[in-house]
Amino acid sequence: MSATIMGIGASNGIAIAKVFRLEHPDLTIKRGSVQDPDAEVRRFREAVEKSTRELEAIRDRTEQQLGEDKAEIFASHLLVLEDPEFVDEAIGKIESEKVNAEFALQEVSDATINFFLTMESDYIKERAADIRDVTKRVLSHLMGVQTADLASISEEVVLIAEDLTPSDTAQLNRTFVKGFVTDIGGRTSHSAIMARSLEIPAVVGTKSVTTQAEAGMMVIVDGTSGQVIVDPSEEEIREFRGKQEEYARLREEWLKAKDQPSISADGHRVEIGANIGTPKDVAGVKEHGGEGIGLYRTEFLYMGRDTMPTEEEQYEAYSSVLRQMEGKPVVVRTLDIGGDKELPYLQLPKEANPFLGYRAIRLCLDRKDLFRTQLRALLRSSVQGNLKIMFPMIATLGEFREAKEVLLEEKQKLMDGGTAISETIQIGIMVEIPSTAVLADRFAKEADFFSIGTNDLIQYTLAADRLNERISYLYQPYNPAILRMVKQVIDAAHAEGKWAGMCGEMAGDPTAIPLLLGMGLDEFSMSASSILRARTLLRSLSKADCEALAAEALNFDTAEEVVELVNHALAVKK
Amino acid sequence: MSATIMGIGASNGIAIAKVFRLEHPDLTIKRGSVQDPDAEVRRFREAVEKSTRELEAIRDRTEQQLGEDKAEIFASHLLVLEDPEFVDEAIGKIESEKVNAEFALQEVSDATINFFLTMESDYIKERAADIRDVTKRVLSHLMGVQTADLASISEEVVLIAEDLTPSDTAQLNRTFVKGFVTDIGGRTSHSAIMARSLEIPAVVGTKSVTTQAEAGMMVIVDGTSGQVIVDPSEEEIREFRGKQEEYARLREEWLKAKDQPSISADGHRVEIGANIGTPKDVAGVKEHGGEGIGLYRTEFLYMGRDTMPTEEEQYEAYSSVLRQMEGKPVVVRTLDIGGDKELPYLQLPKEANPFLGYRAIRLCLDRKDLFRTQLRALLRSSVQGNLKIMFPMIATLGEFREAKEVLLEEKQKLMDGGTAISETIQIGIMVEIPSTAVLADRFAKEADFFSIGTNDLIQYTLAADRLNERISYLYQPYNPAILRMVKQVIDAAHAEGKWAGMCGEMAGDPTAIPLLLGMGLDEFSMSASSILRARTLLRSLSKADCEALAAEALNFDTAEEVVELVNHALAVKK
Repeated sequence: MSATIMGIGASNGIAIAKVFRLEHPDLTIKRGSVQDPDAEVRRFREAVEKSTRELEAIRDRTEQQLGEDKAEIFASHLLVLEDPEFVDEAIGKIESEKVNAEFALQEVSDATINFFLTMESDYIKERAADIRDVTKRVLSHLMGVQTADLASISEEVVLIAEDLTPSDTAQLNRTFVKGFVTDIGGRTSHSAIMARSLEIPAVVGTKSVTTQAEAGMMVIVDGTSGQVIVDPSEEEIREFRGKQEEYARLREEWLKAKDQPSISADGHRVEIGANIGTPKDVAGVKEHGGEGIGLYRTEFLYMGRDTMPTEEEQYEAYSSVLRQMEGKPVVVRTLDIGGDKELPYLQLPKEANPFLGYRAIRLCLDRKDLFRTQLRALLRSSVQGNLKIMFPMIATLGEFREAKEVLLEEKQKLMDGGTAISETIQIGIMVEIPSTAVLADRFAKEADFFSIGTNDLIQYTLAADRLNERISYLYQPYNPAILRMVKQVIDAAHAEGKWAGMCGEMAGDPTAIPLLLGMGLDEFSMSASSILRARTLLRSLSKADCEALAAEALNFDTAEEVVELVNHALAVKK
Repeated sequence: MSATIMGIGASNGIAIAKVFRLEHPDLTIKRGSVQDPDAEVRRFREAVEKSTRELEAIRDRTEQQLGEDKAEIFASHLLVLEDPEFVDEAIGKIESEKVNAEFALQEVSDATINFFLTMESDYIKERAADIRDVTKRVLSHLMGVQTADLASISEEVVLIAEDLTPSDTAQLNRTFVKGFVTDIGGRTSHSAIMARSLEIPAVVGTKSVTTQAEAGMMVIVDGTSGQVIVDPSEEEIREFRGKQEEYARLREEWLKAKDQPSISADGHRVEIGANIGTPKDVAGVKEHGGEGIGLYRTEFLYMGRDTMPTEEEQYEAYSSVLRQMEGKPVVVRTLDIGGDKELPYLQLPKEANPFLGYRAIRLCLDRKDLFRTQLRALLRSSVQGNLKIMFPMIATLGEFREAKEVLLEEKQKLMDGGTAISETIQIGIMVEIPSTAVLADRFAKEADFFSIGTNDLIQYTLAADRLNERISYLYQPYNPAILRMVKQVIDAAHAEGKWAGMCGEMAGDPTAIPLLLGMGLDEFSMSASSILRARTLLRSLSKADCEALAAEALNFDTAEEVVELVNHALAVKK
């Protein structure tokens, strides 16, 4: 009988197919003694060897299909296997304690994971997940257990699993795997991000799907609403086939917007750009018709390594993005590290409240050595395209003035040395701290542009950690307080002849877009895969109507009322 | 030769006296074996016995001189000695391992402290400090080492120490100990709080005073500015004697304000009240001429115990405060727990960013059982005086409506049961989250009053943990963004005929008072010892002048400019 489960919609679209239960094999380990430790060590080395070859193959396939940054997870896995502290410690254990390889490996793995989990850093915790994943792989070879062979699936299915490991998602074959549903995870978990990249409908965090969906049953996955229907009725299948066709039709419709300008129905032009993390992401931006890069997060350059990236490495990366964008605007955000993003080689102190801590511009103004290196690389690359430099986490005018001064000093030094530097670099700030939104009129006199970072602005304005599930009800993009701040920032920019953009998740959100257009936002920056939908919506909207809508929303009491207002307006328009 | 050291001014006033070095004796422990464990256990029990008697004496003396809540620390120490897990474990160790009592105690103490320190809770960490303090006391008895006998000081001195333990501060004799200076600690450390209660000038966190001040040297302590002058010149002593007299004269002056109304020079009346934590604090409020209680922090009722306080216990506490205040307004804040204030028996989950987490009203709306208990106790006590109920950490109108609804439900139930309840209880909110300040005009339609909690409002508005030393420059009460928010909240209240108060540290700050008066703040709530200085200042100010001053400050760029403006205005007035 049909059962409906609600989870978190992690990747849009609808899938209807048979259940494929991805069950991770039982890898329960028992301690055993071995007579011939040397033979056991050989057996262990062979399993490590096989795992390495497998991982290399997966890494290469992922790199081809999804790009270098998505393949990085497997490079991390390979690093675990190359780490002498890990493999050699297990070997040492086999030799000294004469235990079986499985037990030795599990012991070393558990100790390392437990150590990492005490670290309080999401970055380190991800390393713990890597070790867990690699350990499973080596164990399955040691134990001769077949891991679920996702590559062998040859009919259309929806994967049902407690969770998907990075290796699982990388092995998904898009031809046959039409969607997936997991018990655990959130919108920003690894599997959710992968699903969006692969454009596979997915629902995560259902808590119970594995207890309800059995192999061979039909299942409907609505990745937009988070709804999952197990063993649906004929009528439900018909209903969702209809929705599926509607969604496919919409996607076709969106595709038409690729080469069209971002102009509202009544002729108001804005820019729709993309947020990127690495130069490799630019291809996707162009494929989806991005008119610029509204946020280039440079911290990925600094992560997953043991030392700072050199000025030259940075110069190459920035130049590559600028060249690929061929004169279209590229807003580069200077290093936003700290908070939940740690760099082991900076040895940052543990903090009680990292989101309210020593991070981003606060760290850069304190560690000017690394700030200057990045600024030099940026300045040198500026002649390759249309560079705009943006400082993150600016809370006071004093900070902005200091950061700008350091930038101008480096510029002067480079020019004195004969380096060519663009004369039209705009210098702006992220508006993601309430104090800066409140003083936007003063900032607008000195900054060339604003980019509103809603993810942080919302969490600070409502004093609610956006990653804390117990208070997730307080992450309210449509709270009238947030809308008022956004409006104030846009108006302040315009009063001084400057432009205001937005690079938080809100910029690509269909419910927010009418409000943002109505409030006069100039630039919308979002994940590349959201651009066409956003542009299609924008082209259907009248700015004049949206202005009235926004004015009304600004005087509401609650987020719920705002959502209702917008939904009603969009429904009437249809 | 004279040397000036800067630290953190922890308690106002100037002290000039000889250095008394408080050095904690060397309690280095060596492991030894004992032949007769029974005799060793007896020796240990005797030391515990002596320590208990000592602590009881200190507790009683502190209770008499400083009040019950200040004596609580020693009650906690006694609890450690009464804890079988602690004492018996050490005895077990002596018996089973045949080791000396010192070693056994130190081992048990270290293990417990290390365990507590992994807890990430300031509350538990304080328990670790208790154990350290108690261990030292018992060790000194075991080893026959004389601990510094503060009670024996018989000439005027300034104490110089690396740090002061709670026992040290409780033993201070105010007749002879004129001030103290420590290497470590901050404005909110235990020793700093004790210094303010005792009204002894103190500077903490100098980092190096113990390396520079030798026994018998003269030393000047300026607890207002944080300046410490070791081995001062005759001229310096003369200069600071002058300042000292000036300060004494000021205190005399302030005392005159005790029974005067809080009226500005041009006739504008406000209320100056106090923040309290327990019913015992009311005596100090009346002594300093407080016109009301602007903030009664009820969380102390819940802390330092193993179970929730009953409705009856709460009723007694609230009634006591209301009766003592004899009809003057008493603003009781409902439970603000979570964040850095944990309750072990609630078993709250560890959070990545507790200041942005599950706390205060968020917890109360989720755990309505405990919320309802507190509300019933409050409602029942309402007939004893002038009660106003205030909800903390309100971020959305939805939260306020829900909290108010629960309150009205409990009121109806009590009334149905025949309980008398005041019909004039005002229901208000703390404004300490930016979203609430931004939407103050909407909140003012439904709340009876606002109390601005600047400590939190500043940390959220500038996205800077106020306890994080690395970014302490961002804790800016005078940032124009904060002033604009405060102004907006006050204006919003007045537009609806409501009143606006402030219960953060800023309300008692002489630099802030002219601005707050100028912006129209109705109620100023502060620590009792600040009331008379604040009232004296207020009575000297013209509200009209302050309005002009505030208007100017609101259009400034930075906090520094605001401070300069106010200081200049206050200097001209003199």
